[in-house]
Amino acid sequence: MDCIFCKIINGEIPCYKLAENDHAIAFLDIMPITKGHFLVIPKQHIELAEEAPEELIANLMILATRLAGAAKKVLKCDGINFIINSGKRAGQVVPHVHLHVVPRYGDDKINWPWPQGELNNETASFLIDSIINVL
Amino acid sequence: MDCIFCKIINGEIPCYKLAENDHAIAFLDIMPITKGHFLVIPKQHIELAEEAPEELIANLMILATRLAGAAKKVLKCDGINFIINSGKRAGQVVPHVHLHVVPRYGDDKINWPWPQGELNNETASFLIDSIINVL
Repeated sequence: MDCIFCKIINGEIPCYKLAENDHAIAFLDIMPITKGHFLVIPKQHIELAEEAPEELIANLMILATRLAGAAKKVLKCDGINFIINSGKRAGQVVPHVHLHVVPRYGDDKINWPWPQGELNNETASFLIDSIINVL
Repeated sequence: MDCIFCKIINGEIPCYKLAENDHAIAFLDIMPITKGHFLVIPKQHIELAEEAPEELIANLMILATRLAGAAKKVLKCDGINFIINSGKRAGQVVPHVHLHVVPRYGDDKINWPWPQGELNNETASFLIDSIINVL
């Protein structure tokens, strides 16, 4: 397995570890977009969040929010983004599920555009019917 | 309570509902940034993800990934972003925890900058020691 996150989990590559339990590990991102940016990843190698077992994805989020609460006290940040980029087109670089926790500050330079579209009845009905149908 | 999401939960305001269970509800975002953009919110009014009970946040993520898997089959999207913006500075507009599920497409116009910084040993040690200390 040539996955860099699996190597971190196995101890082959060092990391700045924040926490670890039976199912997940949390460590600082070495290319942080803000101070305190960290990652939470499952120990099991799974590429995409939407294909992960429920317990695994639940565990990630629980560890992430718990650590985020502690980080907020220390960093005095003004907000936090919790982000999973799933798939290359969504910005996923390492093909092993990872949850970004990004502390936000009043003076940070991040500005993520959020272009708002419109939703009409026809599209909404199509989406709901077809998604529920394959659920 | 003047929370728009609580009003959706209570049925005072309609929504394009995708799914509902005892703890959460999922519905289409009416100002979608891409086709199929939906939200998953807890029924309990809590403002910030990092302050939410573990079960609640786990439940959100489980419902979100399950629906995302179904949506992907229908939409044939190329990736998915799972995002919780927690706090105004992080982009949270409605002060009731909500998880955005944003399908991504090869031709979508979204480009979220990801400015990569650096992490030195000293900062890393400070962060780890101080965060673990208040955990």
